[in-house]
Amino acid sequence: MTPWTHLIRFTAAEDGEAYYATCIENLPQAGEKVAAFKVITLLETGHAANNQKTIKEILAPVKPGLPIICIGLNYANHAQEAKLTVPKNPPMWYKPSEALANPGTITIPKQAQDNFLDLEGELTIVTSKAAKNVSVENAPSYILGYTIGNDLTARHFQAPASGGGQFSYAKSFDKFAPLGPALISPSAFGEVVKNKIKTTINGRVVQDSPLDLIWGPAELVSFLSQGRTLPMGTAIMTGTPAGVGWFQEPQYSLKDGDVVEISISGIGTLSNTMKFE
Amino acid sequence: MTPWTHLIRFTAAEDGEAYYATCIENLPQAGEKVAAFKVITLLETGHAANNQKTIKEILAPVKPGLPIICIGLNYANHAQEAKLTVPKNPPMWYKPSEALANPGTITIPKQAQDNFLDLEGELTIVTSKAAKNVSVENAPSYILGYTIGNDLTARHFQAPASGGGQFSYAKSFDKFAPLGPALISPSAFGEVVKNKIKTTINGRVVQDSPLDLIWGPAELVSFLSQGRTLPMGTAIMTGTPAGVGWFQEPQYSLKDGDVVEISISGIGTLSNTMKFE
Repeated sequence: MTPWTHLIRFTAAEDGEAYYATCIENLPQAGEKVAAFKVITLLETGHAANNQKTIKEILAPVKPGLPIICIGLNYANHAQEAKLTVPKNPPMWYKPSEALANPGTITIPKQAQDNFLDLEGELTIVTSKAAKNVSVENAPSYILGYTIGNDLTARHFQAPASGGGQFSYAKSFDKFAPLGPALISPSAFGEVVKNKIKTTINGRVVQDSPLDLIWGPAELVSFLSQGRTLPMGTAIMTGTPAGVGWFQEPQYSLKDGDVVEISISGIGTLSNTMKFE
Repeated sequence: MTPWTHLIRFTAAEDGEAYYATCIENLPQAGEKVAAFKVITLLETGHAANNQKTIKEILAPVKPGLPIICIGLNYANHAQEAKLTVPKNPPMWYKPSEALANPGTITIPKQAQDNFLDLEGELTIVTSKAAKNVSVENAPSYILGYTIGNDLTARHFQAPASGGGQFSYAKSFDKFAPLGPALISPSAFGEVVKNKIKTTINGRVVQDSPLDLIWGPAELVSFLSQGRTLPMGTAIMTGTPAGVGWFQEPQYSLKDGDVVEISISGIGTLSNTMKFE
């Protein structure tokens, strides 16, 4: 089996179950047949399945029920627009498992519609094995690959006067963590900073930045594993660059029917349509 | 089957598996035989098991892998010692599943030993069924019962200069959410505010407060379910009263071998020994 570069997770038309498949940058679409396999460790042991399945729906490339960690203030251009000082360590918080969402339509609850729905395009790390007390030097071997994430946020709940400055509530509505469409291997992705992230709303560009993270993937995996265990398959959303709606002049928020597309060079495009409940 | 008042979760000496048992306020101890059952819904359907098992170890009375939500600034006396303004909504954040711990010894990682290890005794709600968009009026029917929790914290990581004011990192070391020993039913617990919480370190009282929560259990379940789904078995740690080490004069932090006991009237005592790794 040759090394994989792109990996997708999908439900099969034949049995409705979730499978993985490897592919190339030109991702397969619903209706196509692919060689499907059940568990990601098959990739590592080299036992390729020969189990043809038809793609019904592309899923987020992580299993539900695993941690989703968010990182804040990881771009100088975003810290600047937010007028916030970059702290000593990466600000981090969790989204609940119920926030995980797939590419495609996202149903936005009433409570988020009325409270300034905003986007955050983010490079997202997925871990390859349980990590605890990992050094920065060893951290790359814990990174299975990279995908694209949108840290959806109802900004009014993020304000200190609302919840004392804790970010989780504003970002933890059901389906507020769409991830996908593919996972790219670290070797195929290459040097992170040489790649770019671009976010559009209905085709209008709102974020466009190199991936010049203040804390890079190895530093994040190391920091997030100190004295604690990151299970295999943990998603780490690495923060967003400048351009989110709350900090623009004039501000913009997401409306019913808006199509948000986040593209990262080498990975592809995560496309989600906001459907107001 | 009569209605239960106290519920424990334990591993059985016979097969090492986890079971539940009902009991009275005088909780059974390791070595005792109890009528064991596997799933909590047996309580609701009234099918009592008659499956005698010997208690090997008392576990936290929630299943691993379910959300652990923390609430901040929920006591006027603690907001006062912290010199913080109570915001409009309850500050909330998550602990990861790996933070769940049982009564008994807790291994404290090096990174927390060096960064001001502190305690927070807390009344903890456990939910009885999936909750979404629940009103305050209906929220009581989503509460399975109450237990005791300790929101262990390495304070240096909680400071804004460290992580931008996000609390999760400081509170998410492995085993930083001990819960237990029993779950008490809401009817047996009675009116929350008429109960008391008391925390001791090696017998010295450091927290002693009525459970006069700013946001009561029904308000919390309602707020935490708006636009999002709380799975059955979610633990909600409801915040801590005055007396945590960081805000005392002089300050105290937890040391190797310290025994922290948190008692809530009607539930019992959660006892944990800090064992520095």
